[in-house]
Amino acid sequence: MSASSERITIRDVAAAAGVSKGAVSLAFNHKPGVSDATRERIFAAARQLGWAPNSSARSLSRQAVDTVGLAICRPARLLGLEPFYMEFISGIESVLAEHNCSLLLRLVGSLEEEIRLQETWWRERQTAGSVLVDFRRDDPRIAPLRELGLPAVAVGHPSLTGGFASVWTDDATAVTEAVRYLAALGHRRIAHVGGPAGLGHSAIRVTAFERTMKELGLGGGLHVETGFSGEDGARATRSLLLSADRPTAIVYDNDLMAVAGLGVAAEMGVPVPDELSLLAWDDSQLCRLTHPTLSAMSHDVHAFGAQVARVLFDVIAGRDVASHPVATPSLVPRASTAPPRT
Amino acid sequence: MSASSERITIRDVAAAAGVSKGAVSLAFNHKPGVSDATRERIFAAARQLGWAPNSSARSLSRQAVDTVGLAICRPARLLGLEPFYMEFISGIESVLAEHNCSLLLRLVGSLEEEIRLQETWWRERQTAGSVLVDFRRDDPRIAPLRELGLPAVAVGHPSLTGGFASVWTDDATAVTEAVRYLAALGHRRIAHVGGPAGLGHSAIRVTAFERTMKELGLGGGLHVETGFSGEDGARATRSLLLSADRPTAIVYDNDLMAVAGLGVAAEMGVPVPDELSLLAWDDSQLCRLTHPTLSAMSHDVHAFGAQVARVLFDVIAGRDVASHPVATPSLVPRASTAPPRT
Repeated sequence: MSASSERITIRDVAAAAGVSKGAVSLAFNHKPGVSDATRERIFAAARQLGWAPNSSARSLSRQAVDTVGLAICRPARLLGLEPFYMEFISGIESVLAEHNCSLLLRLVGSLEEEIRLQETWWRERQTAGSVLVDFRRDDPRIAPLRELGLPAVAVGHPSLTGGFASVWTDDATAVTEAVRYLAALGHRRIAHVGGPAGLGHSAIRVTAFERTMKELGLGGGLHVETGFSGEDGARATRSLLLSADRPTAIVYDNDLMAVAGLGVAAEMGVPVPDELSLLAWDDSQLCRLTHPTLSAMSHDVHAFGAQVARVLFDVIAGRDVASHPVATPSLVPRASTAPPRT
Repeated sequence: MSASSERITIRDVAAAAGVSKGAVSLAFNHKPGVSDATRERIFAAARQLGWAPNSSARSLSRQAVDTVGLAICRPARLLGLEPFYMEFISGIESVLAEHNCSLLLRLVGSLEEEIRLQETWWRERQTAGSVLVDFRRDDPRIAPLRELGLPAVAVGHPSLTGGFASVWTDDATAVTEAVRYLAALGHRRIAHVGGPAGLGHSAIRVTAFERTMKELGLGGGLHVETGFSGEDGARATRSLLLSADRPTAIVYDNDLMAVAGLGVAAEMGVPVPDELSLLAWDDSQLCRLTHPTLSAMSHDVHAFGAQVARVLFDVIAGRDVASHPVATPSLVPRASTAPPRT
């Protein structure tokens, strides 16, 4: 803030425009009582003086929340290609729009950068609160952002999110259902193509996969770690189909990788579902557009994003909120899963 | 703004924290010279009083641009399913991140709502400028936003964007190349599955499609208007494949619809490319994941978004910028196009 920012006040704007302070207030609050010509004169004076109403004071006095923040620590290109994030953000936006509120979106290169950004947003009152995503085990954001008093909702299992109000899906239960279903169809060699091990929810899914396979007496199961991209899904599928103990069923951690897996099976002449069953995750529109259509662990990602936004408004309003599980992903069998023919 | 917002100044915060005004300034500008304990005391005092530095004055004094706006007038769900928009946004974000700048994103229900929102953002200095998208013919946003003096970059052909600096791809030339390529392969019955006629760039593509078909002596060509969703693409493809003069080649206006078209062809037992050639648009990762892989009119949507952000920074800085064509989408032939067998 410059020296001028403390000197220029609403009085200066009113004087420059030749109106009362009340008129300036009406104009900036978009209320009736000033003519269009006067409003224009007031805005011109404010622009010339470099004055604007103090957003935080305005927001406090109005009891309105007009901006919330979301920082994502993933490469920009990956964000654009991942159906999950787009649907999630569109769900958040659907609730924000009802509240006349905008989303401040920022890609960051590291969690340390996110911490600094969240501090700036909050201390300068650019945002009324934030959505925190992609929790790691022992996530470094928790301590500094709790200390800051940032109103926030955490997307992730309460075991990862350190006391923030959290919204989460029960991934462990869903993975167990997926594996038990494939085993019930008769599959014994089941593989899992998962996300980066550093992400908390990826780790939860791998653990549940390996535990369920053991419970079923099927060994630990084959697991491949990926970066979530379609190319990663194609590469993992090729490698699994070339392995000595080729699986007869593969569970993918998102649907883009499952679409890629279907393409690889066709390319290698492995008929789906006769010789290979494929099960996708998230179930965006993609799963219904392929042939055969993809069976999936389905959840409503748009509704998930909407619920996250609702909980954030509760947190900002100071209402007591804790952990919010949303519906567990459920199995939607389509044409890509069947009993193994062998 | 309340009465209190004009009364509380940096002096009050300094007094409450027992420090000088300079110390408050250092703390809020994240500069050295105040201890951590003092900084915390200053922030606590500011929070208690409801004071924050005036963002616009701060931004003017720093000569920094920290937020730009983007309003999108499409249903939230559609946004989540359209690969184009998230790649475009991720391209914008990649340049904003270099400038330490965030994107204020808002879904709006109408262009009138967007006009009011842009006015508020700009007059209250919440944003330093905006990206304007999805231009209609005689777009109602042009006059009010030009009058407002909003620094903006328009995504669309200069014939649509009314004097705003514009960034655009030459869709007419790309459509002409697509149709001429299919005709060169020997196709005579070529169909076009396009977007909503109300969108300026959809209209430009339809006109170019019909003109090229006539120039080649192939009649006006079959055209189906859609809403861009995968389901729309599936429906349009089914209807075309059931028609009396079934086309042997289809050009789609995005890649999600082309993926759906490939699924419908498989479902109806129409071999691609032997009996049907499919040509996608935009060429996200999806086109390389299907089997057969999809030929596409390819452009780098991420780079397109990045260029839009660069031009916006030029506009905000007052540099003279006009129309910026980016690379024309170019044909990437893959396995879904071939001469017709009949």
